[in-house]
Amino acid sequence: MTVSRMSTLFLRTLREDPADAELPGHKLLVRAGYVRRAAPGVYSWLPLGLRVLRKVEGIVREEMDAIGAQELAFPALLPREPYEATGRWTDYGDNLFRLVDRKGADMLLGPTHEEMFTLAVKDLYSSYKDLPLSLYQIQTKYRDEARPRAGLLRGREFVMKDSYSFDVDDAGLEAAYQRHREAYIRIFDKLGFDYVIVKATSGAMGGSASEEFLAVSPDGEDTFVRCEESGYAANVEAVVVPQAGPVPADVVAATPAACEVETPDTPTIDTLVAVLNEKRPRTDGRAWTAHDTLKNVVVALVHPDGHRELLAIGLPGDRQVDMKRLEAQVAPAEIDDATDADFARHPELVRGYIGPAALGLRGEGEEQTGVRYLLDPSIAEGSAWATGANKPGFHVVDLVHGRDFIADGTVQAAEVRDGDPSPDGKGVLRAARGIEMGHIFQLGRKYAEALGLKVLDENGKLVTVTMGSYGIGVSRAVAAIAESNHDDAGLIWPRNVSPADVHVVATGKDAAIFDAAAGMAESLSGEGIDVIYDDRPKVSPGVKFKDAEIIGVPTIVVVGRGLADGVVEIKDRRSGERREVRVDAVVAEVLAEVREH
Amino acid sequence: MTVSRMSTLFLRTLREDPADAELPGHKLLVRAGYVRRAAPGVYSWLPLGLRVLRKVEGIVREEMDAIGAQELAFPALLPREPYEATGRWTDYGDNLFRLVDRKGADMLLGPTHEEMFTLAVKDLYSSYKDLPLSLYQIQTKYRDEARPRAGLLRGREFVMKDSYSFDVDDAGLEAAYQRHREAYIRIFDKLGFDYVIVKATSGAMGGSASEEFLAVSPDGEDTFVRCEESGYAANVEAVVVPQAGPVPADVVAATPAACEVETPDTPTIDTLVAVLNEKRPRTDGRAWTAHDTLKNVVVALVHPDGHRELLAIGLPGDRQVDMKRLEAQVAPAEIDDATDADFARHPELVRGYIGPAALGLRGEGEEQTGVRYLLDPSIAEGSAWATGANKPGFHVVDLVHGRDFIADGTVQAAEVRDGDPSPDGKGVLRAARGIEMGHIFQLGRKYAEALGLKVLDENGKLVTVTMGSYGIGVSRAVAAIAESNHDDAGLIWPRNVSPADVHVVATGKDAAIFDAAAGMAESLSGEGIDVIYDDRPKVSPGVKFKDAEIIGVPTIVVVGRGLADGVVEIKDRRSGERREVRVDAVVAEVLAEVREH
Repeated sequence: MTVSRMSTLFLRTLREDPADAELPGHKLLVRAGYVRRAAPGVYSWLPLGLRVLRKVEGIVREEMDAIGAQELAFPALLPREPYEATGRWTDYGDNLFRLVDRKGADMLLGPTHEEMFTLAVKDLYSSYKDLPLSLYQIQTKYRDEARPRAGLLRGREFVMKDSYSFDVDDAGLEAAYQRHREAYIRIFDKLGFDYVIVKATSGAMGGSASEEFLAVSPDGEDTFVRCEESGYAANVEAVVVPQAGPVPADVVAATPAACEVETPDTPTIDTLVAVLNEKRPRTDGRAWTAHDTLKNVVVALVHPDGHRELLAIGLPGDRQVDMKRLEAQVAPAEIDDATDADFARHPELVRGYIGPAALGLRGEGEEQTGVRYLLDPSIAEGSAWATGANKPGFHVVDLVHGRDFIADGTVQAAEVRDGDPSPDGKGVLRAARGIEMGHIFQLGRKYAEALGLKVLDENGKLVTVTMGSYGIGVSRAVAAIAESNHDDAGLIWPRNVSPADVHVVATGKDAAIFDAAAGMAESLSGEGIDVIYDDRPKVSPGVKFKDAEIIGVPTIVVVGRGLADGVVEIKDRRSGERREVRVDAVVAEVLAEVREH
Repeated sequence: MTVSRMSTLFLRTLREDPADAELPGHKLLVRAGYVRRAAPGVYSWLPLGLRVLRKVEGIVREEMDAIGAQELAFPALLPREPYEATGRWTDYGDNLFRLVDRKGADMLLGPTHEEMFTLAVKDLYSSYKDLPLSLYQIQTKYRDEARPRAGLLRGREFVMKDSYSFDVDDAGLEAAYQRHREAYIRIFDKLGFDYVIVKATSGAMGGSASEEFLAVSPDGEDTFVRCEESGYAANVEAVVVPQAGPVPADVVAATPAACEVETPDTPTIDTLVAVLNEKRPRTDGRAWTAHDTLKNVVVALVHPDGHRELLAIGLPGDRQVDMKRLEAQVAPAEIDDATDADFARHPELVRGYIGPAALGLRGEGEEQTGVRYLLDPSIAEGSAWATGANKPGFHVVDLVHGRDFIADGTVQAAEVRDGDPSPDGKGVLRAARGIEMGHIFQLGRKYAEALGLKVLDENGKLVTVTMGSYGIGVSRAVAAIAESNHDDAGLIWPRNVSPADVHVVATGKDAAIFDAAAGMAESLSGEGIDVIYDDRPKVSPGVKFKDAEIIGVPTIVVVGRGLADGVVEIKDRRSGERREVRVDAVVAEVLAEVREH
């Protein structure tokens, strides 16, 4: 293997945090000379960064090969037609990089390759005997993210492993899904960060069963919940809150008729609750709380074809709408704030006082021109609410769902909170944040149908193939590893993915020291391990130590004054533990450390 | 290493040539299941193709590492600004894939990465002590070729190794250039096709000394010439024909005055020569030949900024203008046919009878509104010509260069022909065709100046860095190897790049045969070599043999009826030689064959 000499290695460590970095791991990747930003969300890989990337690729490749998946490589520059056939040319919206070639043909930069894999199998295969089949690629992908952030975690150009399984029936798909799931567990066990497997939604991809592998991180963009009691775990986007059971009939019968209350100056739920407690105390003796109010939130849905529609969501006043959860429900439409112009088109919506009576597409014989109205599943049939009266300065109390108002359906859009009951009824949810590192799901027949991928079954009948789709963010994994493996002094690479196995530092000016250190570096390299050797003649020991710490190779060997007494120091970067070792034992000691792993 | 079973390998061989393939090697790459076209000039790599591509990458990487070049990876999606600073945003013309991101920022897909490498070095380095430096990447590049053709040979998405050297002075650049040249020789020696190293032009890249590595192939797009006597070799675009010496003064003095001749119905040089020989025989007793006529060819130059200009080229009537040679001279402008509209703007040009008198920017005090006029260097000062008289039906004879007309300069645009004298005066040129596989050149300071890459020299003075640029077409190399290594039955991979070391074929229906063949495949794989094993139970021996031939692995082992007698057959794919080998010796024999290489 190689010896990389610091005197020539294309690397400069930075003392200052880069302006474009937010997360601690990403700051260190830039400061330690692993990556540099080329454009928003677009990164260059410097020599050490590229080595880590390749090691992650190698781990992923090994496990994909082990489950019999076959590697190939599709282009990133793709024709429009297949993506038109599946609807994704439009559904991907602004996230798709589109371009026009010199002949005027529409092309795109592939965000994922379902279409290309489906067409390749259609091209080559025709019989159930050809299946099952799993194919994969490790390839550069493109998505024009609205808010590229957090360095490599959400880039616009990124490396991804995507694989696809092809089966004749659902049992085959289930088996392929499980094989991938197990391979992913082996991969993520090797990568060196904590992760959880959670239920997921499938977003714009279509399909059914779906799980995500999330790296647990307070800086993650995803929120997930886990129930210790039952083992339930899900991305909050995928949590399905059960529908609250109906209120008993006698309770409903005892609820007074709905009644308007003058509520001036109640711009917030809190002020509304205060006014109600003062002017219209509850008949049951409890005080009004935010949870007794029904908040109606209006947003705009922007459909891929550009059509804009308002949507009202009714939920208890003590909950917020979780826009990411809502987006997962309405995809491929996107969510936008409702604007003054939107409200102008709907004069029935009295801002600050919107109530159910003005909402919903239903109507009694009238045209359905209202705003679609969806309720949170916690709003039980028969429950009574304080809510807007659709006129300025007025709310209404004792408005009963099913008696005084109905909605067009329910929606899973309210925030899910730490401490909420688990949807399986078996305990309490705990919330944490994570970074999506892998996603596996049973895509089903959506793409095969759109692109006509059929094979002859045992009876000579054409059947549509069912597919699974499985992704790992390879460049993102480098970032996740960095976020999970660092301290104040720098990065601390897990041995599996470290850019080198050992970092040899020669200190002082004594030629004997440099000779001995160079000899060790060569001996170690001759044993098949990668070495960084700090041979810089005029750099102080302090700077060399700092550089070794920030670069983060797991084993550091310091050759210095001790050499005169026949000893060198071996330092463990993670534990900080140092020990002195006889010069003639150092190669064996380091090899043992590298190989024990 | 792996055993790839034909029963599951994602591969189907085709009997028919694909409609989109022109060249024999490319047809075979498609028919044997190595690549598939995804869009014009854009290819997908199927499993076996990807293996060959990776092996070529490995050979290139090994030799680049050996000369101390350091690998990194730049993005393909790049911001406009650096390419604007060097002028290439415009100069690349329609060959550049441009796109606009969701925020309206101009971006491009990198055709080569001079700008990015230059900026990276500027970012990290600041002193002469940091140099010399060589960096490289093996990366996917994009060019929107006007005529993507010949499969992988000229793709719009392709894999390239590009490297760059950085030095403080010309001697350093020269040394870096030589190191790359030697590495390239080692690489191309390993790749398995005949190649030549020829002088080259640097095209739109700027720079000076420049050589190309061409794979010799009758299907190549490039024409090169070689002089056996002197060793001179050049791409025809780079041939510099010496300026012909002046005609002796006494000869010029003896040339009669120019004289118009009525030459109706002379649409071609041949008809003109015939008419002249009939109506106006030469005074020196020789017959008129095409070589005595001065042909004036008018083309349109389209500059990167869209400006369109006419250009007239004067050359002997027995030569054609070589448009590629001309393009190399006028780059970054492109050549277009002169249109009726172009001629309409220049009424002085009488089509079919254009002569020097109507050409040239010069004028006597008048405005310079003429068409720029450049002469072939074979047009000697003092030589006399038959040429157009600028009026319909008339030519002029005895028009003497320097006496009766002058031009605006010379141009290296005439075709170079087999048998032409070598420009070094030492023999005769022989012409052949080739495929550009590598290009090395001394770029100089163009990019460093445009982007401000300076370092402090030994005296603390800022000096501009000088650069070299070196490219190898990696995916193109796969195609060139295929073009050079095949027969009627299929591909014949050199062992270095073969997708597998050995192809084991089990024939018949006997379980013992399949067991023995599977055992051999496993044993060989256990010895560290890659095996394709044809285990398909219901496929005839004939089809299996045909598949093995077209796939082209260098060693084929056939396990069949001979097994009963304890023998199997080893076939050399290239020579066709077969021999019987004892079953218990086959693994050792195959290993010897693989390793002797």
